[in-house]
Amino acid sequence: MSSPAPAVPPRFGVNYTPRRGWFHAWLDLDPDEIGEDLAAIASLGADHVRIFPLWPLLQPNRTRIRPRGLADVRTVVDVAARVGLDVVVDALQGHLSSFDFVPSWLTSWHRRNMFTDQEVVASTAALVRALGAALAGAGNLIGLSVGNEVNQFSASNHPDPDPLTVAEAAEWTATMLGAARESLPAGLHSVANYDAAWFLDDHAFTPDQSAALGDMTVVHSWIFDGTGQRYGGRSFETAHRGEYYLELARGFSPTPERPLWLQEFGAPQTVLDEADIPWFVTETIGNALDAPQLWGVTWWCSHDVSRDLADSPPLEHTLGLFDEHGRIKPAGEAFRDAIARGRETPTPAARGLSIDWPVGPEPLLRRSAAAPGGAVFEAWMAAAKAGERPTIRVVREAVELAGGDTRTGGAAATRHVG
Amino acid sequence: MSSPAPAVPPRFGVNYTPRRGWFHAWLDLDPDEIGEDLAAIASLGADHVRIFPLWPLLQPNRTRIRPRGLADVRTVVDVAARVGLDVVVDALQGHLSSFDFVPSWLTSWHRRNMFTDQEVVASTAALVRALGAALAGAGNLIGLSVGNEVNQFSASNHPDPDPLTVAEAAEWTATMLGAARESLPAGLHSVANYDAAWFLDDHAFTPDQSAALGDMTVVHSWIFDGTGQRYGGRSFETAHRGEYYLELARGFSPTPERPLWLQEFGAPQTVLDEADIPWFVTETIGNALDAPQLWGVTWWCSHDVSRDLADSPPLEHTLGLFDEHGRIKPAGEAFRDAIARGRETPTPAARGLSIDWPVGPEPLLRRSAAAPGGAVFEAWMAAAKAGERPTIRVVREAVELAGGDTRTGGAAATRHVG
Repeated sequence: MSSPAPAVPPRFGVNYTPRRGWFHAWLDLDPDEIGEDLAAIASLGADHVRIFPLWPLLQPNRTRIRPRGLADVRTVVDVAARVGLDVVVDALQGHLSSFDFVPSWLTSWHRRNMFTDQEVVASTAALVRALGAALAGAGNLIGLSVGNEVNQFSASNHPDPDPLTVAEAAEWTATMLGAARESLPAGLHSVANYDAAWFLDDHAFTPDQSAALGDMTVVHSWIFDGTGQRYGGRSFETAHRGEYYLELARGFSPTPERPLWLQEFGAPQTVLDEADIPWFVTETIGNALDAPQLWGVTWWCSHDVSRDLADSPPLEHTLGLFDEHGRIKPAGEAFRDAIARGRETPTPAARGLSIDWPVGPEPLLRRSAAAPGGAVFEAWMAAAKAGERPTIRVVREAVELAGGDTRTGGAAATRHVG
Repeated sequence: MSSPAPAVPPRFGVNYTPRRGWFHAWLDLDPDEIGEDLAAIASLGADHVRIFPLWPLLQPNRTRIRPRGLADVRTVVDVAARVGLDVVVDALQGHLSSFDFVPSWLTSWHRRNMFTDQEVVASTAALVRALGAALAGAGNLIGLSVGNEVNQFSASNHPDPDPLTVAEAAEWTATMLGAARESLPAGLHSVANYDAAWFLDDHAFTPDQSAALGDMTVVHSWIFDGTGQRYGGRSFETAHRGEYYLELARGFSPTPERPLWLQEFGAPQTVLDEADIPWFVTETIGNALDAPQLWGVTWWCSHDVSRDLADSPPLEHTLGLFDEHGRIKPAGEAFRDAIARGRETPTPAARGLSIDWPVGPEPLLRRSAAAPGGAVFEAWMAAAKAGERPTIRVVREAVELAGGDTRTGGAAATRHVG
């Protein structure tokens, strides 16, 4: 069960939220302003950013992909190169921090399923291919990510969800990643699913898809998912939430060397005291670096959303490493220091103790056992508190669950020395 | 009941649909391409255009109105001036030819009532004021129109309607027109409601609002509303549909001199043979010019929607005076000739015969009697066929309707020599 250590040190990056105008900055792209933001990010020691062009601006009509929209994305990638940053381009926004950005040809009178309608899927894949083509040859491009969190449009708690089957979700994801591969054969491509893929029992996007499709397994670890609420802001569980999630993801890896990416994590003040944020940054990164096969960690986000902009959830105005005026915050200083320390951290050894997750032959229905408060989560945390370096073994054989409660069933987690 | 003749000849104009990129042209505004389109429109003898900036581009966040978005609108107005065209700017799109353009701060997780939520209304009024301020001093600006057809977002047949009361619809309209007046005191401002305001019994936007608010009463006359289907493409009713609608609108005018504007009319090939389009253009304009108090007629639209763009209803690719390559069509030649003839047409005399429309004290519930197939519509058309120049008298006293059928009730229309 042990895994080989990665040959390369992990990457440190930031999800880039333009300081002036947030993602609406794409409407009035100013390379100098973008360059200023990116230089600030680079000054922390980060080596990459993840960027988010808006879907309705790139593809305002199903069959019209704007050349200038693509050129704008390339411009930002090139500006990043000038300050020494590599870039992952998220291909479909889609969804960003509570706002849905869906083109008019998919809404209202033109409403149809984003994932299963064949014309829509073909056109979306065409956009991914066009983005790849526009970025070909950029030496600092890492790859494309299918997202951001576009799986939320299928989630049962979305205001207007697009229902689909597991097979359809897999096919859609494979189609988008195939389009990325076709246009950028050497890129590291991934799918940027949010939590529902891991913890929501009725969700068509699955851990197996995240772990098998694309070149890395991506997790977005947010402590407002119940971790902060249940265990407290400055708690062991909060500090180890990202690490746990990486181990959970690794449990699904089809091969031991599959890279893992903590693609989003941040410090929401809904569950974390402001004074504890530097501690959270330090602990989360330090603990995540103890996960083997870690490709990198990418903080959400670079800049606070300006208070001139309305309707964001309040926490979005506080998630930045820099404030809305561009001043570094304690989170930014802690992130900078964590990067410096992280670059000196030795490659982690393989982990020994496994927590069994008896998902049965149909893992989808038992996902919530791994969510905060679930048996797998709690068993892993207990082992970690006891000084172990636990990992997770996904057991697919049929297993009887105690009392039928998949979330807290006592039988769901057992210890196993791997 | 007779009305004074207008002192000025009617205006002839075109609703401007950019040839390259349709309304997505705003994303990549090219003044030379716009100028080419507008010069073609001016070559027909038209004196004005109506233009349609997209709401999500002007106001991507509730509290962010883009200076460059406003400047782009001003640019188009100034380009129009150079080819001798005046301009009406539609302030809220909103809705255009089957596509809804609603900013992300009003959809999905941020869904709230466009017309009644006080924060939304204040922000929408701020956009109207900002547009007015950006256009102040443009000598060729006629005014602002509140629309396009934004009342459809409240219509019961919308996929996701915003319900509101008649009083709320009136207040919203007055607020938007007040914002227009505040920023452009000398403009001719109007509200661009679509048919539902006139014919849909449960609709909160009403004929009284259209006739009392703003500086002109606006109608959008589309023969696919049942006229073409019921009476035939090349029929008397089709030829007189616009004229009838103007007379209907005049029936609600609070003062005899209230100007009327046939703000939209076009030749949908769903109900009209292509060969009959020149006849339709000629007849519709000739007959509309027989309506006293006519401010102007404005054709929908200038250019066919390019077949490179997907998902438009098929008819939208055929409504232009020019085709997608910029070549004039028979409709364009007929429109040019109709303008030339129209400029020579004497001011119409007041009309004599009135068709009573006994709407009762609550006109809202009997609107459908005036729709194609309704008693008022049929009585008016019968009188016109008999050689009269009928108008409509709105009778607000309580009236017993035959059989309770407000749409076809025989008692709904009586003749009256005014």
